Amino acid sequence: MIIRYSRPDAVALWSQETKYSIWFEIEAHAATKMAELGVIPTEAAEAIWAKGKDVVWDADRIDEIERTTKHDVIAFLTHVSETVGEEARFLHQGMTSSDVLDTCFAVQLARASDMLVTGVDRVLAALEKRALEHKLTPCVGRSHGIHAEPVTFGLKLAGYHAEFQRARRRLLAAKEEIATCAISGAVGTFANVDPRVEEYVAEQMGLAVEPVSTQVIPRDRHAAFFAALGVVASSVERLAVEIRHLQRTEVLEAEEPFDPGQKGSSAMPHKRNPILTENLTGLARLVRSAVVPAMENVALWHERDISHSSVERGIGPDATIHLDFALHRLAGVVERLQVYPDNMQANLDRLGGLVHSQRVMLALTQAGVSREDAYAAVQENAMKVWRGEGRFLDFLKNDARVTLADDQLEALFDLGYHTKHIDTVFARVFGA
Amino acid sequence: MIIRYSRPDAVALWSQETKYSIWFEIEAHAATKMAELGVIPTEAAEAIWAKGKDVVWDADRIDEIERTTKHDVIAFLTHVSETVGEEARFLHQGMTSSDVLDTCFAVQLARASDMLVTGVDRVLAALEKRALEHKLTPCVGRSHGIHAEPVTFGLKLAGYHAEFQRARRRLLAAKEEIATCAISGAVGTFANVDPRVEEYVAEQMGLAVEPVSTQVIPRDRHAAFFAALGVVASSVERLAVEIRHLQRTEVLEAEEPFDPGQKGSSAMPHKRNPILTENLTGLARLVRSAVVPAMENVALWHERDISHSSVERGIGPDATIHLDFALHRLAGVVERLQVYPDNMQANLDRLGGLVHSQRVMLALTQAGVSREDAYAAVQENAMKVWRGEGRFLDFLKNDARVTLADDQLEALFDLGYHTKHIDTVFARVFGA
Amino acid sequence: MIIRYSRPDAVALWSQETKYSIWFEIEAHAATKMAELGVIPTEAAEAIWAKGKDVVWDADRIDEIERTTKHDVIAFLTHVSETVGEEARFLHQGMTSSDVLDTCFAVQLARASDMLVTGVDRVLAALEKRALEHKLTPCVGRSHGIHAEPVTFGLKLAGYHAEFQRARRRLLAAKEEIATCAISGAVGTFANVDPRVEEYVAEQMGLAVEPVSTQVIPRDRHAAFFAALGVVASSVERLAVEIRHLQRTEVLEAEEPFDPGQKGSSAMPHKRNPILTENLTGLARLVRSAVVPAMENVALWHERDISHSSVERGIGPDATIHLDFALHRLAGVVERLQVYPDNMQANLDRLGGLVHSQRVMLALTQAGVSREDAYAAVQENAMKVWRGEGRFLDFLKNDARVTLADDQLEALFDLGYHTKHIDTVFARVFGA
Amino acid sequence: MIIRYSRPDAVALWSQETKYSIWFEIEAHAATKMAELGVIPTEAAEAIWAKGKDVVWDADRIDEIERTTKHDVIAFLTHVSETVGEEARFLHQGMTSSDVLDTCFAVQLARASDMLVTGVDRVLAALEKRALEHKLTPCVGRSHGIHAEPVTFGLKLAGYHAEFQRARRRLLAAKEEIATCAISGAVGTFANVDPRVEEYVAEQMGLAVEPVSTQVIPRDRHAAFFAALGVVASSVERLAVEIRHLQRTEVLEAEEPFDPGQKGSSAMPHKRNPILTENLTGLARLVRSAVVPAMENVALWHERDISHSSVERGIGPDATIHLDFALHRLAGVVERLQVYPDNMQANLDRLGGLVHSQRVMLALTQAGVSREDAYAAVQENAMKVWRGEGRFLDFLKNDARVTLADDQLEALFDLGYHTKHIDTVFARVFGA
Repeated sequence: MIIRYSRPDAVALWSQETKYSIWFEIEAHAATKMAELGVIPTEAAEAIWAKGKDVVWDADRIDEIERTTKHDVIAFLTHVSETVGEEARFLHQGMTSSDVLDTCFAVQLARASDMLVTGVDRVLAALEKRALEHKLTPCVGRSHGIHAEPVTFGLKLAGYHAEFQRARRRLLAAKEEIATCAISGAVGTFANVDPRVEEYVAEQMGLAVEPVSTQVIPRDRHAAFFAALGVVASSVERLAVEIRHLQRTEVLEAEEPFDPGQKGSSAMPHKRNPILTENLTGLARLVRSAVVPAMENVALWHERDISHSSVERGIGPDATIHLDFALHRLAGVVERLQVYPDNMQANLDRLGGLVHSQRVMLALTQAGVSREDAYAAVQENAMKVWRGEGRFLDFLKNDARVTLADDQLEALFDLGYHTKHIDTVFARVFGA
Repeated sequence: MIIRYSRPDAVALWSQETKYSIWFEIEAHAATKMAELGVIPTEAAEAIWAKGKDVVWDADRIDEIERTTKHDVIAFLTHVSETVGEEARFLHQGMTSSDVLDTCFAVQLARASDMLVTGVDRVLAALEKRALEHKLTPCVGRSHGIHAEPVTFGLKLAGYHAEFQRARRRLLAAKEEIATCAISGAVGTFANVDPRVEEYVAEQMGLAVEPVSTQVIPRDRHAAFFAALGVVASSVERLAVEIRHLQRTEVLEAEEPFDPGQKGSSAMPHKRNPILTENLTGLARLVRSAVVPAMENVALWHERDISHSSVERGIGPDATIHLDFALHRLAGVVERLQVYPDNMQANLDRLGGLVHSQRVMLALTQAGVSREDAYAAVQENAMKVWRGEGRFLDFLKNDARVTLADDQLEALFDLGYHTKHIDTVFARVFGA
Repeated sequence: MIIRYSRPDAVALWSQETKYSIWFEIEAHAATKMAELGVIPTEAAEAIWAKGKDVVWDADRIDEIERTTKHDVIAFLTHVSETVGEEARFLHQGMTSSDVLDTCFAVQLARASDMLVTGVDRVLAALEKRALEHKLTPCVGRSHGIHAEPVTFGLKLAGYHAEFQRARRRLLAAKEEIATCAISGAVGTFANVDPRVEEYVAEQMGLAVEPVSTQVIPRDRHAAFFAALGVVASSVERLAVEIRHLQRTEVLEAEEPFDPGQKGSSAMPHKRNPILTENLTGLARLVRSAVVPAMENVALWHERDISHSSVERGIGPDATIHLDFALHRLAGVVERLQVYPDNMQANLDRLGGLVHSQRVMLALTQAGVSREDAYAAVQENAMKVWRGEGRFLDFLKNDARVTLADDQLEALFDLGYHTKHIDTVFARVFGA
Repeated sequence: MIIRYSRPDAVALWSQETKYSIWFEIEAHAATKMAELGVIPTEAAEAIWAKGKDVVWDADRIDEIERTTKHDVIAFLTHVSETVGEEARFLHQGMTSSDVLDTCFAVQLARASDMLVTGVDRVLAALEKRALEHKLTPCVGRSHGIHAEPVTFGLKLAGYHAEFQRARRRLLAAKEEIATCAISGAVGTFANVDPRVEEYVAEQMGLAVEPVSTQVIPRDRHAAFFAALGVVASSVERLAVEIRHLQRTEVLEAEEPFDPGQKGSSAMPHKRNPILTENLTGLARLVRSAVVPAMENVALWHERDISHSSVERGIGPDATIHLDFALHRLAGVVERLQVYPDNMQANLDRLGGLVHSQRVMLALTQAGVSREDAYAAVQENAMKVWRGEGRFLDFLKNDARVTLADDQLEALFDLGYHTKHIDTVFARVFGA
């Protein structure tokens, strides 16, 4: 995890303190239920809660104990007994370390999902605000990087809004994939722990019950989770790349915020670079890099091997923290994006109306010219414009094959023709 | 696509004939709605359907035309007009090629999803049958490849059933991701085509409306689709690897079907190899290889570039056809899997009851021995068994630290202790 | 493999006919050596060569036999005996199928390497020609998509030339990785085949001896091979993306060849799209998708499992055929690239000399202004230019902090300053 | 980077202190050459070395300055001037930040390569020692996880030795790929810095000159570097998986070191798990995850964008540190691997000589039986053994089709037949 690309909240989610706090909750809830089932004394469960509830467990001390025990969960339980006292020996009865570790990981990933949804919501809010602001700001639509036909800048943003609505749904589905609790013992048979303990802890921790665990929660869930993050990261990349394109010197239709006193380059004082969105492009690659290892983690041997563990120690924090950071950075860019409608208009006009070529062609066919002839006539005049030989409208007016009156032709260059269904699209995206 | 790893139905889904048939439907449905909206003559739409409905379009002829037009959709429309006649000129009015191509791709991927769900259903049926059959067939559970504690073979299969239930849900979600229709023109503004055409065609083709398309349907959808396939393939791999392990010579608890007359090896007549599940392991890698390119396809430039196209020409058929084949191959293996309960029992007994070490330790702690002492005593005796020095139960009976009567100890070696909650798990997986 | 993205030579390399021809050579060379060692009769080996040398083996007939034998190598040998006669029974003595399959795959990959090197050489030739042609054609260098300082178009191309020189070396190294021969029997012990047979066949087939094979040639070699292809594909992508950028409407410094009669878009007659380089971008993703599965193939179980086989049936032909196609497509684009020096100059001038900001700043520091003050003065004037408020040189002349005479300032805007070391770089790339 | 999977040396290589130390060297060497070229005063260069040579730069102070300057290189130079004094203003003349950053990264990756080679050397030494020790220790060779024919444990290890020799060569090649120096200014034209500075610094830092840089060293080099690491990691995985297989309870031919006092499982006192090699399997996935992002980094826009930077801040340290750790962990496992020749022999005997089936078949064909009949007879008897019906040799002796005398048959079960070429293979791997 690269601290430079993290927010403190996200880092905290993966801290030792948070982890131990979740471990305690899992163990203590299990104790409560075991007491209810008569497996351990009720007083023990109560004492555990009473003495342990608000403790911030001492990660250094646990590390110290682990150097002796060589086992993290045992070290934790030993430390708990130092604080809670002798009743702590009733913790963890019939449970296996993975019961705690996997359920804790589920809680962390579920919380990470919530955090990521919050980030997406900030992106959505920014996109909606800017989309409404620029609903009718004309700009050129480009396919293949080449001017195609007019759109509006708001329409572009509406498309991203729809995409991030999907991102939100994917994150919620990813949370549901991952948010399960397994307390089923060494190989998932509940030999030493009653299934009702699992049910109770699941409920208390906001998780579903894992229908069948082995020693571990099955890793297809985690693969689905990280795959969802990879898709969301790719959407971040798409919007980032769009902004990078718009900021290109020759295009300059929009620009990342550039603060007073900021230096774009130490060497070249004139520079203002889209470094935030370039950074987002890189972060997308990093987040995506978690997807394949997560899938390679699925085929654990028999009731589990531990090959997934080192992978998840990496990708668990890394992918969630970096995606969280990316979403907030992206939201910040969208919120403060400098938009240059004049440049948009200038670019739209750059080809002297070439972007209306389809409409001219269609008008010619409606006027009785065959599609082939219409295409040929329009294309021929368009190519002269590309060669810089003059204005499209002038060429058309002077072409005998173009059997349309001058005012008819001029009317075809109307932008309103292209924006007439913007309301329909906005209603689809933002509601009526 | 490797024909050796394909089923004919899946191949047919991606044939030129299927593609042109879908193209025709999209164009003809669009014509129907355009006629209703008064954009084209009603008779034209009717004639198109009347003359084109059941035609198998001639892919070779279309190829021939394309060599002149250098454009696939134009070649198709030209060929349609050869069959349907002059009314065909009313097709495709105001539409762009991507409207047809992307919507067709959505239809193919949606049908592929259905096909894959059918494959998963066959896997599920096979798993359920064999799981019920072996619900109480004891075998050893292994963590880290090392004997852990007893499970049943049915419990193993129930876990895979639960995983393939998730696979099924993921495929249905993937279908929903992908099953959208875009008929919105050159840059998604509906400038030349009414949004109601899109709505109508979507409904007729069993698709949802794409809320905002650019020139294309946004590729985050496809990324999510192929990611889901990658996760399902990883589940195929997990079960395949499990069977490969069970068939290892030293384990031999189960075996792939081996037909009379089959040769396991040209050189070594004694061989019976798990080649089907090894093949599934490889196919999983192939299917997964579609995931990253699909994600790299998301960030198309502006209103689209065409870099995704070559990728999808590869991964569209390849990933769906190979996963479909893999699911059916897997189902066949599970259906006909040779299961050897005697070998399972022999393996379970191999360590002379070492798999009960936890239970012995817990019994000792319940008898008042400290956990540390109990662990040490049990471990010490267990290590002697590993060294091949004798039987676990004998060692325990003769260890003064083990303060349990012989009959108490013997009772701890009861398998029923480990199967008492199998019903609970089966109810979770297969219903009450 | 997508036939649309293939050249016939590359496809032929992976045909059944080629494969069987290589199989025959391997078997027949082995027979020659076995005869020399007295393992089989000399006449048999001679007859095999005499009758089999120029035969084109009948793939359909072999398929037919395989439907009975269920084994490809046995089917081939049966077919050989149909043609060569009874002496064919002396073929394959003590060999295992993988000896033939893996050595054949090595030959095919080695030939593919040669073919790819030829493709790279064509790219190199095109780059060198165009680089020399545009050695001193000024254009703007861009970092972050933003105008930075002047370069020349030839310098850009020289950089790509150096990169493809590296690509060439990587392909040669990849060939060396993969070009080994294994004829070592069922588990690599040479129990039934003399190591001298392996040495002889290796020499005849232009391969090295595999020092230690198991049943197969170790797959780390193949992983290295496909990784090299992935790197080369990424270099193809970089040049493709550069050209796509240069063809953007607002930039238009270069353009892919556009043939008379070509249609850029069925709907928009004015379009000329960089579809070839977009296609190359997609093909790069496809080729790269072979890398991870090839790495996942390395950890075969013990002396081999066959999970790699299905993967290689896919990636072997796909990655080499598509990369071969991509290299030739790229070479064609570079050879016929339309270059627009006037547009390059116009873009270079677009910011009115802002690209000289560093040089102005350095001149100011040399004139005694502190770096901080120099930076601030230059940046402040530059920002006015970005805002479209006027010309950079004018602002500088009128800024009291800029303590340089007007003619001094004007001299700083000289392009020659930036091209003075082009010769040095060209000498590094193309030799003196 | 996961500290748990790191060695201090590797971590130190990526520390802030190391980075600043390299930055200083680059800047100071450049100053030396600039002084020689008369660009800056000789005394300045001398003073910089004299005062800065052994300084440990204060990372916290630099961070503090960076919070003001928002630029890491400027912050560093400012801090240098605090220590070195006013002469520091002559540093970095005409250079660009990337000149320092990219050259420093090259130095770090080159040093990482050296470190990784050291790790591989330790693996090689361990493999050689154990291979020689077990050169003639018989064990069964397995294809498809099924017993095939006899090999020796030393032969297995020799194969891995050959593979790690290749790993070593790949790392050296990777170092050569990456070890280049670029000091060419803002867009690679040397407009403000003489190419001789680059040459001098390159030589001093043990690097080659980058023939053409843009603002940055081209990223195909880094892609090749990380791809090589991915291949090496895959080789680590193959050996790790082999050991995991050998330690399976039913196989138990070898075992990871298990220390006195170690606990295999908190719950099951009898457990000894191959956790080190499982961990290596996971680390291989992590290291491999760097490959695709490194390839995605290649196609930077024009003369550079900064999207690669965040990726490299992650994968640079992570992939090298984890692979370094993995190599040493692997070497430790091989060095201390518990090998159980008795179990190897027992497994070899498990099928009662079935592993000799090929030899029996070949003997039958040499005795005049057709290959088909010989295969059928041997296979039929072998299948009886699989079904547990008796001993292979007994069946053969009693089968009329097996026209070999009993002593002939017994002689075919000789292990020496399979080990006769071990010397040849060892000579290939370890030299004569």
